Amino acid sequence: MTTSDVLAGASLDSMVLKCVTCGRTHALDELRWRCGDCRGVLDLEGFTAVMANASALARRRPSLWRYAEALPVPEPAGITMGEGGTPLVPAPAKRGVFLKMDYLMPTGSFKDRGAVLVAALAERLGVRRMVADSSGNAGAAIAAYAARAGIVCDVYVPATTSAGKVAQLRAYGATVRQVDGTREDTAAAAALDADDPDVFYASHVYNPFFFHGTKTYVFELWEQFDGRLPGTLVLPAGNGTLVLGAYLGCRELLDQRLIDGLPRIVAVQAENCAPLAHAFNRGRAVSQAGAAGGTIAEGIAIARPARAEQIVAAVRATQGEIVTVAEPHIRAAHSALARAGLHVEPTAAVCWAAIQAFPERPAEAGDEIVAPLCGSGLKSKPPA
Amino acid sequence: MTTSDVLAGASLDSMVLKCVTCGRTHALDELRWRCGDCRGVLDLEGFTAVMANASALARRRPSLWRYAEALPVPEPAGITMGEGGTPLVPAPAKRGVFLKMDYLMPTGSFKDRGAVLVAALAERLGVRRMVADSSGNAGAAIAAYAARAGIVCDVYVPATTSAGKVAQLRAYGATVRQVDGTREDTAAAAALDADDPDVFYASHVYNPFFFHGTKTYVFELWEQFDGRLPGTLVLPAGNGTLVLGAYLGCRELLDQRLIDGLPRIVAVQAENCAPLAHAFNRGRAVSQAGAAGGTIAEGIAIARPARAEQIVAAVRATQGEIVTVAEPHIRAAHSALARAGLHVEPTAAVCWAAIQAFPERPAEAGDEIVAPLCGSGLKSKPPA
Ligand SMILES: [Zn+2]
Ligand SMILES: [Zn+2]
Repeated sequence: MTTSDVLAGASLDSMVLKCVTCGRTHALDELRWRCGDCRGVLDLEGFTAVMANASALARRRPSLWRYAEALPVPEPAGITMGEGGTPLVPAPAKRGVFLKMDYLMPTGSFKDRGAVLVAALAERLGVRRMVADSSGNAGAAIAAYAARAGIVCDVYVPATTSAGKVAQLRAYGATVRQVDGTREDTAAAAALDADDPDVFYASHVYNPFFFHGTKTYVFELWEQFDGRLPGTLVLPAGNGTLVLGAYLGCRELLDQRLIDGLPRIVAVQAENCAPLAHAFNRGRAVSQAGAAGGTIAEGIAIARPARAEQIVAAVRATQGEIVTVAEPHIRAAHSALARAGLHVEPTAAVCWAAIQAFPERPAEAGDEIVAPLCGSGLKSKPPA
Repeated sequence: MTTSDVLAGASLDSMVLKCVTCGRTHALDELRWRCGDCRGVLDLEGFTAVMANASALARRRPSLWRYAEALPVPEPAGITMGEGGTPLVPAPAKRGVFLKMDYLMPTGSFKDRGAVLVAALAERLGVRRMVADSSGNAGAAIAAYAARAGIVCDVYVPATTSAGKVAQLRAYGATVRQVDGTREDTAAAAALDADDPDVFYASHVYNPFFFHGTKTYVFELWEQFDGRLPGTLVLPAGNGTLVLGAYLGCRELLDQRLIDGLPRIVAVQAENCAPLAHAFNRGRAVSQAGAAGGTIAEGIAIARPARAEQIVAAVRATQGEIVTVAEPHIRAAHSALARAGLHVEPTAAVCWAAIQAFPERPAEAGDEIVAPLCGSGLKSKPPA
């Protein structure tokens, strides 16, 4: 990769954060994580993604930074760990189904795609301290990239978080703040801290730069399918970091006429914690969802996703659907993947569980199904 | 990647296994793991590696199978998980030093490079059952690729192996055979089983195809440095799977005049278990090495490496050296890497520990130092 390949990147000056509810805009350096008026979630405005041409792409390394012109921050030389560029593997015993090895990432999950964008933004904005509020993959990813950026990082986690996860966050140099109560109480404590105007909330849910990272999942597929997309993207859905990122990436490819139409997004939730599926299929408001039951797919056990309306709308816009999978089927899928050499965490098995229920059909070009293996099995106990 | 890019691969018929001690040759389908006469270790003969040209490489995916003409088996479509193609990252606070993210592999360590070659060979030979004898990275890699190949796999491990590691091997479908006694006793039990003429010994130490996999580490560096190699390769050394693979890769590049000379190989051992360093520096026979002390770098805690003479000779041929690092320095390096966002297993920190003792010098082109981060931190407890 020659230096002349690398664009300076879009200027942050032209970008604002816009409330999806009331439309109010906020400058990036205000470090807002939600609307100052109505508390709505914010999206990025004032940036237009451009896909590099084939000859430029052919000269670039496989990391997600090969899409420099499509990313709202330039490649952060001291922060990147080469994240992205994950392989695509034919699924065991299912013709036309492919699994994307998205756990082959520096911290072991697809969350690195978003975390590196958020850390790059924080570095550009001269942030001194950031907070995050996940004990899982997002927390590990944010803590790692904060470490690389040399930014002090506090991670809020439920007091019940395992000693091993706490130790890993501390190994990255993060300060771990343990909060009594529910996962929502933890998020509230982080949000309170994040309301300090000098603090940057490195949220995988609220910060729209995160989705500009996860959208590269789709760009890579577009290259791996030689300039088109498969017909169906099966994606796990909790907070929607991958669903919303994938939808964003698809829209950007469509806007540039690099694809003919949107692939169908099939979002998958655990039956025991399925507020999005209920909202989608029964018209129930997400806020009225009952208490979450337990699920081994803990990465998507989110009772009240902050971007629920966006997730439901995105799936609808693709003529897709939101499906649920029961615990025994998640367990079976988890074991089956390991028996095929694919050792992932339980959350990463929900899509494979969902695909088992798809009707068998002949695979034609354009009719392929792709699901991500989004978290390493080394993060969890092996399947029984 | 178009199909016409893929060569059929060298024919196995022309290849034999040759004893490095007495020169006797053995057909591949004899499934010998050491010389039938003198019990010496075997190398592969009758195969000449060829590096594809730049325009062919530009069209190929980043996995190690991009070097098809340089590998003794063709890409095994049903087995590969896209292993290889790992990023190179500038080391924290050391100019001219780069770390290769070789833990971004399907089973979390560089051993996948070798395991996929060995499994591909086993599939070609029509093997029904294979055995391995490692409770660590090599065992996990062999078990995973055996699972993908649909080959029954028995993994011999010391009875003291942790329940978690046993569970992971079983998740892949392997039969775990626990052996009382030392690590050498475990290897002996596996070897006894492997002497059955129908059993394939998928050994990361004895099977020379393994090294034809690990050599791709060097091919990738050659591409990442735009058609040359860095001046110094710092590599961990236990059984020498990476040292011997790297040396093989360098020799093959030199034979094709794709490099001007061999880079210096600096092999690193834990001071508490350093038979190779003693042999290299004090002329002591490896067989006379004292009992190994404990080390957190358990991946290289090998008291009697079977290919010790080859390892020492390879390092000498590159004008290199074999150095040792003490436990406190390994621990410090392990923590320092995590604080820089690089969460690896302790064994993967020995090279970084060794590099701390290198004299500071201006980095010039050709004078770079590269070390692998060869195993995921998720495989071990986080650093304190
Ligand atoms: Zn608003
Ligand atoms: Zn012999």
